[in-house]
Amino acid sequence: MEEKDTSRTEAFSDGVFAIAITLLILEIKVPELSENTGRTGLLSALLAAWPSLLAFVISFVSILVMWINHHEVFGLIERVNAPFLYANGLLLMLITFVPFPTAVLAKFLETEAAPAAAAFYCGTFVAVNIAFNLLWSAAVSKGRRLLRQDLSEARVRKIRAVYLGAFGVYLLAAIVAWISPFAGLLIYFSLWFLWSRVKYTSESEGV
Amino acid sequence: MEEKDTSRTEAFSDGVFAIAITLLILEIKVPELSENTGRTGLLSALLAAWPSLLAFVISFVSILVMWINHHEVFGLIERVNAPFLYANGLLLMLITFVPFPTAVLAKFLETEAAPAAAAFYCGTFVAVNIAFNLLWSAAVSKGRRLLRQDLSEARVRKIRAVYLGAFGVYLLAAIVAWISPFAGLLIYFSLWFLWSRVKYTSESEGV
Amino acid sequence: MEEKDTSRTEAFSDGVFAIAITLLILEIKVPELSENTGRTGLLSALLAAWPSLLAFVISFVSILVMWINHHEVFGLIERVNAPFLYANGLLLMLITFVPFPTAVLAKFLETEAAPAAAAFYCGTFVAVNIAFNLLWSAAVSKGRRLLRQDLSEARVRKIRAVYLGAFGVYLLAAIVAWISPFAGLLIYFSLWFLWSRVKYTSESEGV
Amino acid sequence: MEEKDTSRTEAFSDGVFAIAITLLILEIKVPELSENTGRTGLLSALLAAWPSLLAFVISFVSILVMWINHHEVFGLIERVNAPFLYANGLLLMLITFVPFPTAVLAKFLETEAAPAAAAFYCGTFVAVNIAFNLLWSAAVSKGRRLLRQDLSEARVRKIRAVYLGAFGVYLLAAIVAWISPFAGLLIYFSLWFLWSRVKYTSESEGV
Repeated sequence: MEEKDTSRTEAFSDGVFAIAITLLILEIKVPELSENTGRTGLLSALLAAWPSLLAFVISFVSILVMWINHHEVFGLIERVNAPFLYANGLLLMLITFVPFPTAVLAKFLETEAAPAAAAFYCGTFVAVNIAFNLLWSAAVSKGRRLLRQDLSEARVRKIRAVYLGAFGVYLLAAIVAWISPFAGLLIYFSLWFLWSRVKYTSESEGV
Repeated sequence: MEEKDTSRTEAFSDGVFAIAITLLILEIKVPELSENTGRTGLLSALLAAWPSLLAFVISFVSILVMWINHHEVFGLIERVNAPFLYANGLLLMLITFVPFPTAVLAKFLETEAAPAAAAFYCGTFVAVNIAFNLLWSAAVSKGRRLLRQDLSEARVRKIRAVYLGAFGVYLLAAIVAWISPFAGLLIYFSLWFLWSRVKYTSESEGV
Repeated sequence: MEEKDTSRTEAFSDGVFAIAITLLILEIKVPELSENTGRTGLLSALLAAWPSLLAFVISFVSILVMWINHHEVFGLIERVNAPFLYANGLLLMLITFVPFPTAVLAKFLETEAAPAAAAFYCGTFVAVNIAFNLLWSAAVSKGRRLLRQDLSEARVRKIRAVYLGAFGVYLLAAIVAWISPFAGLLIYFSLWFLWSRVKYTSESEGV
Repeated sequence: MEEKDTSRTEAFSDGVFAIAITLLILEIKVPELSENTGRTGLLSALLAAWPSLLAFVISFVSILVMWINHHEVFGLIERVNAPFLYANGLLLMLITFVPFPTAVLAKFLETEAAPAAAAFYCGTFVAVNIAFNLLWSAAVSKGRRLLRQDLSEARVRKIRAVYLGAFGVYLLAAIVAWISPFAGLLIYFSLWFLWSRVKYTSESEGV
């Protein structure tokens, strides 16, 4: 496969992100109540569904953050080749997978099995991170042929360092979650702040 | 994050709106009938599913109305920044959430728990309204830098007044629904007429 | 609302059509079998699911045909106004509704309740046809201001006649289905040939 | 229907591919566990769900490969006509169908019924291959009017040969799967390598 322009891949990827983020709601189940349950009974049941709501919010923010970063990467490249497309395919597969660990987290967050659910959830994002690392490796390999010409070498290395560093934190989150699910999830949340602060372009800062 | 043009955010948002509005149908369940139920039995069962059908129609119209208004806002801005994108992300999360309160409303509208279901439903749109207020606040802050140049100050204030006023009505609908679900929903419906009459642009009217 | 160009409405509509047509598959349920069922047992169970497969195929073709005709209508107009958008919204709501009567048809086609299921299915398309009639009425009203200038008066009337005539056939299909479900569905199928032969443009034929 | 440009058909098709590939995740069910199951119990249950995970991965890759090839075909044509659109419609219907055989494969891969599940899965792609053959036949018929002018006759014949040859291999996979499900799936996987190597364009190779 020759190198091609990026628009069709980006549009397809955007569609997958948008659908995956919207399917999350299907994992929240309407409570089953007995016939004569009153208004306070339903209110209690809705409040008791907080693990589902929490899992929905976490995964929505996670996919949105991934989408923003995915878009930023595409803003730095000018064409795609086969290794880049394979890495992108792996990334999309993991994004569409997110509703499943989300549902597992929602169902078991209040049970004895919570550590495994939280570790599985964080572990999924270890895999997502690996896909992002592969995507960036493909983008910068072969003499930077896929990249925009105006991207500085320092910027390329900075992005690689952030992606590699994040791998360690995601892995830590998954391991900690196996001991303490909430501590693991807190470490996972901390990465959102990292992602919202990654600079993909720099006009005047000298990196 | 620097200021950027709006097209990618708008396309992604449109995708989420289109998917959320289409997923609503998945919440209508096919009736379970005994083996030898005849044609009139099925007809009765379909008619008995009116709360599901009503909830489907209400939510479809609601999301469509929100989509139209979302698009109008994007028609008034020329670029996006981080606070605007966060407000938009919150809005999209609430839009994807709508199928859940819809399913709750459908299931409990004929039960003792109807007031809680209707209040939860209206309460969801209180949150949607807050997201719209945040979106408009972000759009007009920082010296109106995100807005189109030809938008009058009077128009900006008029839109803000409508959004803030709607907050009160949505809140009223949620409170009333807790006492009388149908009265609450009627107040909620009245807001559709408001939204269909909001003027986002004005050539000659002087506001 | 002023008259506007059609692209954003068309893109949103296309998204809804594409999602509704793809959601149909979710209504086909995987058979439940006992533990030690062998390969021929599963094959029998899959063959026994023919009503689900038939309903899936019928609805897929139906939505595809509706999409093609919807696109043809948008090819004839140059701008949209409020009544046109309301008619389009009603049409989209009915398209997203199709998976529900499809599931009802699949579940009850082999039962005593088949006549009601088939009549409900055909009845849904009576409603779809009404939405198409409203859409075309809105397109041609107000001195043909929404239409392309090169569209002949004869062409406009021909399309209206086809849409109105189809209403009668859809209604007939629904009524006949209440007596004989397969006869009703056959009448319904016959309309596909009509739709595939509607001429929305005519270079040289003189209508 | 006259010949038309390809963009609207391609955009609609892309939407269907993106949705079908994302819906696959809905077929993976969250395990049901007793109240006091611990972290290792959930981990075991997740590992025991490997047939679902395997089926998800296989179908994701399959649809992605089909999407890439579909896009390549559209890269070779300049307009569409009715037979091409019908073949494309059949192809899209089969793509949206894929989540169902995927769910069947996931559910029965570890049971006695595995041969039928694997044969049904491979058989679905026999049908997909027939749709691709029809699509290419429509593309090259009528004096190559739909094709790009710069496409060589040798290239057209090469693509046809690949598509026809693949039919035999898919059929073989389905037949072998009925005897040995894993052997059948292995033959099926081998076709991915074929598809990733099909050359739709050739600058200098002389075919």
